[in-house]
Amino acid sequence: MKPKAVILLSGGLDSATVLALAQAQGYECYAMSFDYGQRHRSELAAASRLASSAGVADYKVIKLDLDGIGGSALTDDSIAVPETLEAGIPLTYVPARNTVFLALALGWAEVLGAGDLFIGVNAVDYSGYPDCRPEFIVAFERLANLATRTGVEGTGFRIRAPLQNMTKGEIIQSGYQLGVDYSQTVSCYQADSSGAACGRCDSCRLRAAGFATAGVVDPTRYV
Amino acid sequence: MKPKAVILLSGGLDSATVLALAQAQGYECYAMSFDYGQRHRSELAAASRLASSAGVADYKVIKLDLDGIGGSALTDDSIAVPETLEAGIPLTYVPARNTVFLALALGWAEVLGAGDLFIGVNAVDYSGYPDCRPEFIVAFERLANLATRTGVEGTGFRIRAPLQNMTKGEIIQSGYQLGVDYSQTVSCYQADSSGAACGRCDSCRLRAAGFATAGVVDPTRYV
Repeated sequence: MKPKAVILLSGGLDSATVLALAQAQGYECYAMSFDYGQRHRSELAAASRLASSAGVADYKVIKLDLDGIGGSALTDDSIAVPETLEAGIPLTYVPARNTVFLALALGWAEVLGAGDLFIGVNAVDYSGYPDCRPEFIVAFERLANLATRTGVEGTGFRIRAPLQNMTKGEIIQSGYQLGVDYSQTVSCYQADSSGAACGRCDSCRLRAAGFATAGVVDPTRYV
Repeated sequence: MKPKAVILLSGGLDSATVLALAQAQGYECYAMSFDYGQRHRSELAAASRLASSAGVADYKVIKLDLDGIGGSALTDDSIAVPETLEAGIPLTYVPARNTVFLALALGWAEVLGAGDLFIGVNAVDYSGYPDCRPEFIVAFERLANLATRTGVEGTGFRIRAPLQNMTKGEIIQSGYQLGVDYSQTVSCYQADSSGAACGRCDSCRLRAAGFATAGVVDPTRYV
C-alpha cells in the first residue's frame, strides 16, 4: 500500500511541481486548497484542474474568511498589489497564512493516516515571506508532533518542502521532466477571471525569469 | 493606551475565566470563536453572550469546515460522545484543533497589532489532549515568532495560558472573584440547543467537580 501524503495545492507553479514530485516518490496524494478571499480567484480554479488531471486520491477546498481578518494586499481590496519588488517583507504577505494552511492540512492528515505533508515553499526565490523559511518549516514539524495524537502515540509527521533549496528555474526544469503542464497553473497575484496574468507583479516577474533560466517555453497567458 | 490581546473564547468555563483575567491585567481584549461544526452549538451562543457582557473591543467568529475533515466525536456524527473517562487521548480530541485556532488568532493579532494571545488550556484537568500541554504552547510561541512579520521585524508574540497550572476548582475561584457569571458558560460536549448540560460527559464531570472543590454554587442547568 502506498504511503499517504497531504499536498498543499495553491494552483501556482510551485505547488503543481510539488504534487508531481510527491507522486513520483510513490505517495498516494490528497490535495488541499484554501478559499481565503484571495483576489486571484482563478488560482483556485487552476488548483482544481491540477488535482483532477493528476488523479489525486481526494481533493478538498477549505473555505476560510481570512478576508475578515485583513492586512494583506492579497485579501484586502484597500491595499494595492505592488508592481515593483519591495525591500523586506512585502505587502502581499498574508498574516500567518502558511501556519493556518499547515495546521488545517495537519488535521486532515491525522484523520487520513497520512504521515507526510508537502508544501511548495522556497528559500531562494521566497519573496521575503517569513513563513516560507526553512526554520519555519522545522518549527512547524516540531509543533505538529507535539500537537497531535499521531505525534504523541504514533509514527509522527514530516513536513516536506522539496523546493526549499531550488531556484525557480530548477523547479520548472524538474516539473517539466515529470510532465507538469504549467499552462494549467496560475501564479499572478491579480490574474483575471480566465487566469490570464498581469505580467507586472512580483509573482509574474519571478515566474517569467524562471522559465527563461530553465530554457523552457513559457506557456503563461498574459492579459 | 492599553496593550491589545486576542482571546480564544469557546463559550466554556475556562475561556470565560481567561477573558476576565486578561481584562483584569489591563489588556484591551479582542475575542475570537470558531464555528467548526461542533455538536455543542450552544457553546457558540454562550461565547457571543460572554463577549458582549465583557464589553470586548471586537468579537469575531471564524467559520471553519473541520466537520469535512472529520475524525472526532465532537464534529463527526458517526462517533458517539463517550460518557466515561477514557485512558489516553479521548475520542473527543479534534485533530490539530488548537493549532488551527491559534494560527487564526495569530493572523488576527498581527493585523490588530496585538502582541498577546490568550488561550484557556489547562495542564491539570487537561483531559489528555496533546494540544493542551505546556510544551505545545511553548512550541507554538516559537513558531509564531518565526512565522510572522511581527516576530521577525517587531516585538514578537506571547502565548498566554494563565490556567495552565490551575485546577478546575482554582479556575472557578479566580473567575468568581473577578465576577464571571458562570451561568452564561456552556461546557457540555452534547448540550441541548438551550445550553442545558447532559451531566454525563467528561467535560460535565470535570466542571461539576470543579464547582464542588471551589465551594462555589454550581449554576449549571442540566437537561
